[in-house]
Amino acid sequence: MLAQLIALDWGTTSLRAYKLAAGGVVLEQRALLSGIMQLPKTPRVINGRECADGFELAFDEACGDWLDAQPDLPVIACGMVGSAQGWREAAYCETPANVANLGKSLQTIVSLRGTLVHIVPGVIQRSRLPNVMRGEETQVLGVLQNLPIEAGADLLIGLPGSHSKWVDVVDGCIIHFDTFMTGEVFAVLSEHSILGRTLKQGATFDALAFDRGVQVAQSADGELGVLSSLFSARTLGLTGELSPTEQADYLSGLMIGHELAALATVQRRRRNNTNLPSIILIGNAQLCARYSRALDACGFANVTLAEQATERGLWQLALAAGLIDTSFR
Amino acid sequence: MLAQLIALDWGTTSLRAYKLAAGGVVLEQRALLSGIMQLPKTPRVINGRECADGFELAFDEACGDWLDAQPDLPVIACGMVGSAQGWREAAYCETPANVANLGKSLQTIVSLRGTLVHIVPGVIQRSRLPNVMRGEETQVLGVLQNLPIEAGADLLIGLPGSHSKWVDVVDGCIIHFDTFMTGEVFAVLSEHSILGRTLKQGATFDALAFDRGVQVAQSADGELGVLSSLFSARTLGLTGELSPTEQADYLSGLMIGHELAALATVQRRRRNNTNLPSIILIGNAQLCARYSRALDACGFANVTLAEQATERGLWQLALAAGLIDTSFR
Repeated sequence: MLAQLIALDWGTTSLRAYKLAAGGVVLEQRALLSGIMQLPKTPRVINGRECADGFELAFDEACGDWLDAQPDLPVIACGMVGSAQGWREAAYCETPANVANLGKSLQTIVSLRGTLVHIVPGVIQRSRLPNVMRGEETQVLGVLQNLPIEAGADLLIGLPGSHSKWVDVVDGCIIHFDTFMTGEVFAVLSEHSILGRTLKQGATFDALAFDRGVQVAQSADGELGVLSSLFSARTLGLTGELSPTEQADYLSGLMIGHELAALATVQRRRRNNTNLPSIILIGNAQLCARYSRALDACGFANVTLAEQATERGLWQLALAAGLIDTSFR
Repeated sequence: MLAQLIALDWGTTSLRAYKLAAGGVVLEQRALLSGIMQLPKTPRVINGRECADGFELAFDEACGDWLDAQPDLPVIACGMVGSAQGWREAAYCETPANVANLGKSLQTIVSLRGTLVHIVPGVIQRSRLPNVMRGEETQVLGVLQNLPIEAGADLLIGLPGSHSKWVDVVDGCIIHFDTFMTGEVFAVLSEHSILGRTLKQGATFDALAFDRGVQVAQSADGELGVLSSLFSARTLGLTGELSPTEQADYLSGLMIGHELAALATVQRRRRNNTNLPSIILIGNAQLCARYSRALDACGFANVTLAEQATERGLWQLALAAGLIDTSFR
């Protein structure tokens, strides 16, 4: 099959490249560590010119050979590449956001080889406490493409990560979302706080310790909030109830448990319904497995995992932007 | 006045030494940076012997000259000096804990110059999520000494710090306490998380930004919990609503606000009373001023600050342990 689009998922720490054919079929894909915070540094000749620009170098590594073979392939990219620290800033679009209005708002930059790179803007929700996303909007739109439009009403899309996002959708639109910094807070506490002095990341997942943490967050013991219950990762170690590797998974469960317990309370209130919405999770498989386990414990009965969300979203956005030659379809 | 006791408040990062006379009157005091995690390292002759032990060196710097002048002065010390990483471990005493039972449980070590150093044990509460303190028990007992015994019922003692403690007392006993890691979490987030990239510690306290944070924590916007509302320190910066220095005090107010909002809820439930207890705060004046402001906003109407809590507590414990020659009184 002939390629029709190069799609880049370009985040802070990684860069994934997809070569897509008609219908968004993935012909080839690559994962590089050239996220915008760790771009390549070794100068190289690109298109006949010596180049030291990290974005150009990473772009060339990711798909230079694909463009050599098919120079006219359109290119679309989402994620932190469009942030103020990225290759070209693509200003946030406001909620409600869908494929049509995001597809109309792509920012562009011309690469050294003359290729026009189309960058997807992030989404901003101007609530009293504003919220922003970059990259997740594309994943959500990729998932929505495969859903019956009426599925939205009872649906919440979750994107676990350093900053997890929980996204409400209506009629194919992102209408509201919340952010939790759970993953990043877990990482800095594990590395830089007193909790890190006794906990040890285990080689395998300790489900029992994780579940115990989730349970504590939901119980009366968790009522003082995460700033208080955190300390139990240490004290249960002091009293010999948690080994160093158990402390790590306990802390993970505790923090995810606090996130999801609060999410459940607020979702019930917002929907004015004791039933919790169905969940679709997008993201890293191991992290989604943790969230899935904790969601179940917190009463979210219907949880499924999405696949290929990013490449599907990028395909949809490229279509909406008119980048794909549809005469081939 | 003749000295009767040397009292040491020996924590992780600092060492305070007090020379006390009858009635606990402070004759002289010193503050050194020789906490147990930053002990002196330069060997020196102590009592005729070359010494490289950090605890001995710090002890000698803190009160060697006082002991030269009065070699028989008893010495008492509280804080992390009695932890597993300290000079001599003093095993935790269980709650309920008061002056009498802590005074009976002092651990001892003989210093190089032959002085017996008495170390106050910490306190452990073996609740489902255990809780521990070291040093704070002495401060609490120092405050209780000056209170009418019936004051306890409607009283909560707060000790803001890296790990703040909230202590319930009855009849001169520490019966229950909670820990919040607010201070340490604030520090690691400011230094190591994405929030630190845009926030800047200001030279002066920005009361307006702090109060805004406290208010958010108490409002419906704070309902998703601190792991979510944290992110607003960044997004309110992105939208130009908070300057870098405002972000720091906003984040401080937000986190202390989450701590106190949860504390208020749990105190009301535990006491089965909509009235909140009176508060006595012990600790660093600037941090107590922040907590005082936030306590007021969270509905704690009666807040006072305690002074000289540590030296008073050490005096009481030394008395209970029979270390003071009471014929002088």
